[in-house]
Amino acid sequence: MQLTSPVAPGGTIGILGGGQLGRMLALAAARLGLKAHVYCHDANAAAFQVCDRHTVGEFDDLAAIARFALSCDAVTFEFENVPAATVEHIAQFTPANPGAGALRNTQDRLVEKSFITSLGVNTAAFFAVDSEKTAREAFAALGGPGVMKTRRLGYDGKGQAKVASAEEAVRALDSFRHAPAVLEAFVDFFYEASIVAARGVDGSFAAYDPPENIHEHHILRRSIVPGRLTPAQASEATIIARTIAEALGYIGVLAVELFVCRDGTLLVNEIAPRVHNSGHWTLEACTVSQFEQHIRAIAGWPLGDPVRHADATLENILGGEAVDWAGYARRPGALHLYGKSEVRPGRKMGHFTTLGPLTKPPRRP
Amino acid sequence: MQLTSPVAPGGTIGILGGGQLGRMLALAAARLGLKAHVYCHDANAAAFQVCDRHTVGEFDDLAAIARFALSCDAVTFEFENVPAATVEHIAQFTPANPGAGALRNTQDRLVEKSFITSLGVNTAAFFAVDSEKTAREAFAALGGPGVMKTRRLGYDGKGQAKVASAEEAVRALDSFRHAPAVLEAFVDFFYEASIVAARGVDGSFAAYDPPENIHEHHILRRSIVPGRLTPAQASEATIIARTIAEALGYIGVLAVELFVCRDGTLLVNEIAPRVHNSGHWTLEACTVSQFEQHIRAIAGWPLGDPVRHADATLENILGGEAVDWAGYARRPGALHLYGKSEVRPGRKMGHFTTLGPLTKPPRRP
Repeated sequence: MQLTSPVAPGGTIGILGGGQLGRMLALAAARLGLKAHVYCHDANAAAFQVCDRHTVGEFDDLAAIARFALSCDAVTFEFENVPAATVEHIAQFTPANPGAGALRNTQDRLVEKSFITSLGVNTAAFFAVDSEKTAREAFAALGGPGVMKTRRLGYDGKGQAKVASAEEAVRALDSFRHAPAVLEAFVDFFYEASIVAARGVDGSFAAYDPPENIHEHHILRRSIVPGRLTPAQASEATIIARTIAEALGYIGVLAVELFVCRDGTLLVNEIAPRVHNSGHWTLEACTVSQFEQHIRAIAGWPLGDPVRHADATLENILGGEAVDWAGYARRPGALHLYGKSEVRPGRKMGHFTTLGPLTKPPRRP
Repeated sequence: MQLTSPVAPGGTIGILGGGQLGRMLALAAARLGLKAHVYCHDANAAAFQVCDRHTVGEFDDLAAIARFALSCDAVTFEFENVPAATVEHIAQFTPANPGAGALRNTQDRLVEKSFITSLGVNTAAFFAVDSEKTAREAFAALGGPGVMKTRRLGYDGKGQAKVASAEEAVRALDSFRHAPAVLEAFVDFFYEASIVAARGVDGSFAAYDPPENIHEHHILRRSIVPGRLTPAQASEATIIARTIAEALGYIGVLAVELFVCRDGTLLVNEIAPRVHNSGHWTLEACTVSQFEQHIRAIAGWPLGDPVRHADATLENILGGEAVDWAGYARRPGALHLYGKSEVRPGRKMGHFTTLGPLTKPPRRP
């Protein structure tokens, strides 16, 4: 189903997934007078604490999914590993965005990278690997160090291994239990960045200023805006996001993770068809955050102004760091805790944003 | 019960009242990883849409109130007409702030004004009225035009009448069905202002920059910060708020409504022992909003930084104006809709905040 008119205040937004992204989407919907119905397999989902209604269920329980869809005026999801079939099932009853096509093009690294390069946008060189033979061939073709990644279900560095020889490529494939993989050229990047942008039902497009991102152990540690991107690079990043969004007929917020090479080249690392950790600073530094922007887009509302009014540094609160919540509460800045009861190493428990006066003119759309 | 230690993330904040203030308090609690349990007589309360748990009940159902209190780690309220006895009952089980003393001193205009003047803080001249005889005497003592107000349960201009003669004073008392009243001198003020401030469990104090307020038909239309107050007046307003908060042993956010006279004098109009409409702009213009500040205070957390990082204009969306939500959504700025299904004339349906660069240095605590 297509959205034929905007979801009016009082309507219900369905959200698949009840983690911190679903929670912040539900909070953003509330701000606009929209109700949230969150669907998640975890009975203790963080987002359940802040929504009008919730359902505990699996993504492949299509009867429960249909009942959920029928209770909503528009449906979205918080993360890209929702089965595309689930989103297609929902779309029979209720407009669901981003659509199944966006999921199909981003859930599989090989499909994703082929799609990106088909648009004339650069990625690291990549090769499909699904056997010992193709692992060796791919390494030979690459001719240098690379990173083996499973094609599906990777995030925060899971399902990845650096490889410096054909033997290591074979061992990596073994460690993935022979799940289909890609071998990517190792990019000795200068730094990482991302672009978070939105496309509306009417084809309108709005991008936030791209932050520079610092990862530790494959998990985002810090995002800084403005980072080191030049105005020309920021424009290029915006064009990349727009090109991808338009090719996908995308509705909602998407993020494109980028490697910035020493020669100034931008390479796309991956596309996240959803709100993104590196955009959490928009909650304070913009009047319309990425979460509200996403809700606006999938509810058929006009997109909001993405221009930032402050410099910002976002810092994740990971695992046991959350124990010091009182220390964070004493620091000047914006503290967000996600309502997760269980602390696990590296788990995203909250984030902290510090604002400062604008030091460079913000990017205007 | 006193708060002996802060309510840790994962704990539950109880909120009496489920209107827009309760809703925005629940949303602020969520940001800090705290759950909200909202208690309200209205089964369609706006705040029910965004909280972890809710109870439909009356404030005088002390058994239900006790169960509610026992489910919470700290309790607060969204408006000052909660019976002080209800708050006292809760405090037997769970820390409840602001306390019953703050309610007793602000629910009755005569008690409130006597309390304020006892602190050496100025109000308009006022006289108690409870009969035709005292109405005539009060008017004679006043010697000029005044405003008759019921002592209890007034808000947004309800229970008020301008009087220009002893006869009109008597008629006003009749129109109140002889509810006890006060006759106040009519203040030909230059403009209105307010100060929103917080006092923490540890006695710390934090005030927001005082806005200038524009009312229409006794309802707040617009708040502007910075308004026309001079730095000296802003300091005086802050001292007034602090004096009142300390005299009440207050914990939480309070607002003091002020008349700014043509000679520069500040007169206190009334005290609101709660978050206040004229402080809604803090959601965007400060990193810690009045709602989060209130939750921090009543949960025993350190107060947050109240310094604003932008100029702001807050505009209420009243009654039928909410029909044009799509028009508001197209304007650059922050739109908040309260999730109220029923539109009534003058009802507060939402608000809209526009930010601008700082034009004056913001007040620092």
